[in-house]
Amino acid sequence: MYRLRTLLLGSPLPTAGLSHEKLGKFKGLATFSPDALSSIAYANQEIFLGLAVAGSAGLGYTFTLGLIITAILIVVAISYLQTIHEYPSGAGSYIVAKANLGDFPGLVAAAALMMDYLLVAAVSLTAGVEALASAFPVIWPYRIAIALLLLAFITILNMRGLQETGAVMSIPVYFFIGSFLIMIIFGLFRLFTSAPIPFPTTMPGPVQPLSIFILLRAFASGSTALTGVEAISNGVPAFKKPESKNAGITLIVMSILMGFLFLSTLGLSKYFGIVAVADETILSALSRQLFDNSILYYVIQISTLAMLAVAANTAFADFPRIAAILAGDRYLPSQLKALGDRLVFANGNLLLAAATAVLIIIFRGDSHSLIPLFAIGAFLAFTLSQAGMVRHWIRKKTKGWRTKAFINGLGTFTTGTVVVIVGVGKFIQGAWITLIIIPLTIWLFLVIHRHYEKIAQQLSLKGLPPELKPYPKLRFVMPISGVHRGIFHAVDFARSISKNLIAIYVEVEPGTGEKVRKKWEEWFPDIALKIVPSPYRSIIGPFIDFLDRYDVEANDGQLAGVILPEFVTEGFWSNILHNQLAWLIKFALLYRRRKKGYQQVIVDVPFHLRED
Amino acid sequence: MYRLRTLLLGSPLPTAGLSHEKLGKFKGLATFSPDALSSIAYANQEIFLGLAVAGSAGLGYTFTLGLIITAILIVVAISYLQTIHEYPSGAGSYIVAKANLGDFPGLVAAAALMMDYLLVAAVSLTAGVEALASAFPVIWPYRIAIALLLLAFITILNMRGLQETGAVMSIPVYFFIGSFLIMIIFGLFRLFTSAPIPFPTTMPGPVQPLSIFILLRAFASGSTALTGVEAISNGVPAFKKPESKNAGITLIVMSILMGFLFLSTLGLSKYFGIVAVADETILSALSRQLFDNSILYYVIQISTLAMLAVAANTAFADFPRIAAILAGDRYLPSQLKALGDRLVFANGNLLLAAATAVLIIIFRGDSHSLIPLFAIGAFLAFTLSQAGMVRHWIRKKTKGWRTKAFINGLGTFTTGTVVVIVGVGKFIQGAWITLIIIPLTIWLFLVIHRHYEKIAQQLSLKGLPPELKPYPKLRFVMPISGVHRGIFHAVDFARSISKNLIAIYVEVEPGTGEKVRKKWEEWFPDIALKIVPSPYRSIIGPFIDFLDRYDVEANDGQLAGVILPEFVTEGFWSNILHNQLAWLIKFALLYRRRKKGYQQVIVDVPFHLRED
Repeated sequence: MYRLRTLLLGSPLPTAGLSHEKLGKFKGLATFSPDALSSIAYANQEIFLGLAVAGSAGLGYTFTLGLIITAILIVVAISYLQTIHEYPSGAGSYIVAKANLGDFPGLVAAAALMMDYLLVAAVSLTAGVEALASAFPVIWPYRIAIALLLLAFITILNMRGLQETGAVMSIPVYFFIGSFLIMIIFGLFRLFTSAPIPFPTTMPGPVQPLSIFILLRAFASGSTALTGVEAISNGVPAFKKPESKNAGITLIVMSILMGFLFLSTLGLSKYFGIVAVADETILSALSRQLFDNSILYYVIQISTLAMLAVAANTAFADFPRIAAILAGDRYLPSQLKALGDRLVFANGNLLLAAATAVLIIIFRGDSHSLIPLFAIGAFLAFTLSQAGMVRHWIRKKTKGWRTKAFINGLGTFTTGTVVVIVGVGKFIQGAWITLIIIPLTIWLFLVIHRHYEKIAQQLSLKGLPPELKPYPKLRFVMPISGVHRGIFHAVDFARSISKNLIAIYVEVEPGTGEKVRKKWEEWFPDIALKIVPSPYRSIIGPFIDFLDRYDVEANDGQLAGVILPEFVTEGFWSNILHNQLAWLIKFALLYRRRKKGYQQVIVDVPFHLRED
Repeated sequence: MYRLRTLLLGSPLPTAGLSHEKLGKFKGLATFSPDALSSIAYANQEIFLGLAVAGSAGLGYTFTLGLIITAILIVVAISYLQTIHEYPSGAGSYIVAKANLGDFPGLVAAAALMMDYLLVAAVSLTAGVEALASAFPVIWPYRIAIALLLLAFITILNMRGLQETGAVMSIPVYFFIGSFLIMIIFGLFRLFTSAPIPFPTTMPGPVQPLSIFILLRAFASGSTALTGVEAISNGVPAFKKPESKNAGITLIVMSILMGFLFLSTLGLSKYFGIVAVADETILSALSRQLFDNSILYYVIQISTLAMLAVAANTAFADFPRIAAILAGDRYLPSQLKALGDRLVFANGNLLLAAATAVLIIIFRGDSHSLIPLFAIGAFLAFTLSQAGMVRHWIRKKTKGWRTKAFINGLGTFTTGTVVVIVGVGKFIQGAWITLIIIPLTIWLFLVIHRHYEKIAQQLSLKGLPPELKPYPKLRFVMPISGVHRGIFHAVDFARSISKNLIAIYVEVEPGTGEKVRKKWEEWFPDIALKIVPSPYRSIIGPFIDFLDRYDVEANDGQLAGVILPEFVTEGFWSNILHNQLAWLIKFALLYRRRKKGYQQVIVDVPFHLRED
């Protein structure tokens, strides 16, 4: 086990090895943009699928929707620029919403963000595998298995820790940007040299008349393009000094790139009359149209997969971090904030991997059916974060606060509207799942928080007198399975700490008790032995009952201590050959025998058996 | 959990409730014959399938093979009659072989029998489902699932205990016997009133020339008809007095019934030229031929399924019993001999159920592919048991011992020959699996036995002086996670039993140690606190290392005792919210910290947290 672990994850790293490498703009863009940029791989697809139900009349609106979404991108980007400059030490939605709006809105933002990261991982992986399967149709039926393999790979990579691979990650990102820019330039050249191709007039499936609702639904799906824009604001402290300035410039560059890639691929697809068909993505169809089946086509598909895998990786960087922050604030189990052997939040990683695997399997590796769950989380977090900023400006009233509050207010309004459109437009297709899971998550946060607060209260030293009364001499009870060498040390130790000791034998097989008593009296004539019959052959029940009766009889204000002689075999597995009674008894003592205000003591005296 | 269990299995029964109801011949036949009688459902099938590869020339030998197998049945039955009279207190193969031939042959017989019971369960269930699916072809693709459901049902029934249902069991058995006798009488009537139908001259699949090897293979498969004949000899003590006489008469009746059912169904199938086809069993084809698709046909199929289910149930009665006997002799884990809540060997039941489920799944619910594994076990046990009887007579030399030894000798020779024929003839088809598993099982028996013997030796009181030296005062070490209310009782108890106490804090986050020390010195200035740094953030490792160093330094010939303050939350599940450090530490102490000849003491002082 240990060797396999070391092979997969590498050997443990010392705490002192925590790297504090800071990112420049070049590496910063590679680190924080994949989530946003790669979304063109599924957002375009969704816009086309959404509009295609209204035939070529619907598809005529692709570019218009693209322009609207780009406009929102600009609003959101400017809005976040202000946030970055105001919170240089980390501008994540949870922190901003909590600081300005209060704990509860903060938790809503956190739940929304966690849901969003989970979906980033699931959607990116499935969309990436779809890009690959468009190029190599033979693997189309195996998308689930391939997505899970990729997930396992990314999980292991993240469990090892990605510190040394920061530079390596830049390669697929700039490879993606480069290859798409080439495709777009080539496409624009073709655009100026050839006539537009109209959308086919016949569509697969029945065509509905174009309606506002269809447009809104297509918009709701397409708005997934904007998820990931907040990534930079979460990571401001990771930038080189001056952090806010560098992060801001990176955000501007990313937004421009994003808008350009999104609009031009949409426009080219429309110009060349590309329609999504079964077993092929829109981007694949576009690049196939432009490059035929030349090697460049395959380059585009593979760079898409690589970029989407890196985007899924973003979720692995961010989800465990926000889980750790929440665990630190006592809203999630404290295990989530423990740094693992490799200096990563290993438990958060595993939690995300498991949840992503479940999503991929439930939704059969189909990014299209995952999309309706997506976007709500991201836009909810956007809205709360922007609203927090509005409150921030109103409170602070620094120079120019009215303009700034207006900009963030516009952001709040825009992203809030998107939340409503997505929630309503995609409600039946799956948004309801998100709208159930987010409140459930918040409820879980609160339950956990209340638990920890109660515990903290009970552990507090406040009001405790510095001197406690001397510990009273305890009565001890020792359960025995027979008279053999295994109990001698236990009897011996018990004698050394208390004069008040009795042994107890639970008689499962009628008649054995007398045999045990005879042997016992031969060896320990000075210690009383109680034989307790067990008509139902259980050992634990009669033993606990005996202890309760004994405590009531003694009536000395304490629970009898228990001395457990325990066999331990040398190899762990050979314990299967013995009844694990000592563990069961201890378990029963801890969970079944508790009396308010009484103190328990359980003494294990192991008897180590040898195999040689 | 507990409620579900009570609902499924009923409430616990007292040991005094162990029923000692004795069986008469009528109930005795119903109890012990299903395994044998039901085997015509698959043995016939196997003979036809085995011979069909040689076309109609091969099929001509069906009745001849049937006669040979019936002759063996007679030899085995007479042989067992003698055993029954000689061992009225139980004449199972394990007991007889062990008593007369020694421990090792006894273990071979036991391993063979256990393998055989396992296959009885798997083959009966799959063959039963095949009988049903022959009548209702729509369920043919779901055979595995149905067989597993049936298995679950039988398992639950047996976990409840079958004591009260003994009489109920007679119904399917006599229903089966009755309906088959009607079918056979009807068939004989048809036989006298219509001409024989020849086998079709064209067979599905290529036809091979008839060879001795084909005949031997068909014989090997058909000999599965004889498994289950030993059932009565295992259960002699269950009969009313005089046990041997009643058991003997039941054995004779069963053998005659068996021979009659077997030969007449074989003969009728041959006379009417029945050939096995895909998706239908031979018996189904025969009764369909006789009864057309009338209600009687369905009666036959359902009675076959019911009988096979009862036969599978036999395995559930016998497998756990022999496992318990072996556990009593220390050849299997002692858990297998514990009577469960419902006075049944629950662990043996579960073991059999799990193994049967695995077999059904691996062999895709196909009785035909399970058959080659079958029969070897039964015949190996027969051979050893008969050989034991020969030895018994030679030793005892009672009146007429020569004749008796000859009869058992003939039995030994016959069944031994069948073992060789099955082992060789079906080796490639699956007998090799049995021939690997049986030795592996014996090896397991021996390893387990050696383990228990070593343990018994170490626990023995032989040579132990009656007085031990007084227990030396122990040094105690108490690991703490911080200074809070949870550790006060532990400190208090530790002070009350030892003057030599130190606390230890493993510092995972650099800097926390000093804070803890300040608080510690405020509350417990008289007790030393050691702060142990942990560069790799593990707690267990540095703690165990510290203990080792401390023991070496002290050099007082003992291991330091450990006092573990332990949080226990009220509900079991809320423990997930806390690191389960106390359990992990205890585990590490028991398995990683052991020194030959040294004694350990571990004291748990639980601190019970409330949720209210």
